[in-house]
Amino acid sequence: MNELKKQYKHKPRDEKEVRNMKSRLHRMVGQLNGIEKMLDEGRYCGDILIQISAIESALQALGYMVLQDHLETCVREKVKEDDEEVMKEVLTLIRKLK
Amino acid sequence: MNELKKQYKHKPRDEKEVRNMKSRLHRMVGQLNGIEKMLDEGRYCGDILIQISAIESALQALGYMVLQDHLETCVREKVKEDDEEVMKEVLTLIRKLK
Amino acid sequence: MNELKKQYKHKPRDEKEVRNMKSRLHRMVGQLNGIEKMLDEGRYCGDILIQISAIESALQALGYMVLQDHLETCVREKVKEDDEEVMKEVLTLIRKLK
Amino acid sequence: MNELKKQYKHKPRDEKEVRNMKSRLHRMVGQLNGIEKMLDEGRYCGDILIQISAIESALQALGYMVLQDHLETCVREKVKEDDEEVMKEVLTLIRKLK
Repeated sequence: MNELKKQYKHKPRDEKEVRNMKSRLHRMVGQLNGIEKMLDEGRYCGDILIQISAIESALQALGYMVLQDHLETCVREKVKEDDEEVMKEVLTLIRKLK
Repeated sequence: MNELKKQYKHKPRDEKEVRNMKSRLHRMVGQLNGIEKMLDEGRYCGDILIQISAIESALQALGYMVLQDHLETCVREKVKEDDEEVMKEVLTLIRKLK
Repeated sequence: MNELKKQYKHKPRDEKEVRNMKSRLHRMVGQLNGIEKMLDEGRYCGDILIQISAIESALQALGYMVLQDHLETCVREKVKEDDEEVMKEVLTLIRKLK
Repeated sequence: MNELKKQYKHKPRDEKEVRNMKSRLHRMVGQLNGIEKMLDEGRYCGDILIQISAIESALQALGYMVLQDHLETCVREKVKEDDEEVMKEVLTLIRKLK
């Protein structure tokens, strides 16, 4: 990604919410490491798939959390500033998320 | 998970495939750590959501990889042994994956 | 659904867009009837599944179309009226769509 | 689709299951017609999206039904005949379904 294109959130995220998001990220890292261990142990494919599906759900939940925050803050602000493009951007993001 | 219920793959996974899977897991861990950094930097929600969606795709690709291996080995074997339950199990796994 | 709870769109939909949406609905009805015919002919499961997946994509595309219209009109309006609940409703709808 | 490429199911589907599938198809056609009526009445986008999501779920359920039947019959048979390609085909179908 182009360094110059980095965008920042106008209004900082709530500290408690950031802590919540980070603890979710840490848990997912733990789950991914768990899968590596399962591969080392030669565990059954079905068990690994259940673990992958658990991480998928955790990731989706995090995505919805960020999206909700996005809608309530950035999108709300931009709509009030009559930004014509913001809803197209929202739809593009929604389509990307599972 | 009950330790006693741990199941193992009958035929060991191909070494090259395990290496491939592990390198995918490592990349995803890197991407999750990247999101933590983005939160620390107060990066734009849209950028974080794009990153989450990239990990979702990577996870889904890994899931399909494990599923394909499962179908080609465990499931194929069980069908040949006239296991009546294996296809129900496959469908349950498919429904869990995104 | 409770007849009394029926809600209406404040600003009417664009006529051309309604025609577009209806023609998509008709095409999907045709595709569903096509599946019925395939069942009568005893067609191969794989062929039927490909047809189902085509309707899923068509339905998803229609959903995004209605969602985009919703975001650009109803949601935009409600944000401007400082409606506190509208983004929660949007997120609930997004979670329901595939 | 090429008429010559039409494939047929080797073992006919269970009559009761075909009736079940057809009644699901008819219900979905009814739901699509319901959306057309909602468009004519200028109904709220949120209500239409909930209806679309209901059809998506119904379609997905039908897809899983056909897939289960496929796994239990065609796929099982082909595995027993040592067909090398069948699992690749299954995975392609799974990836297409939502």
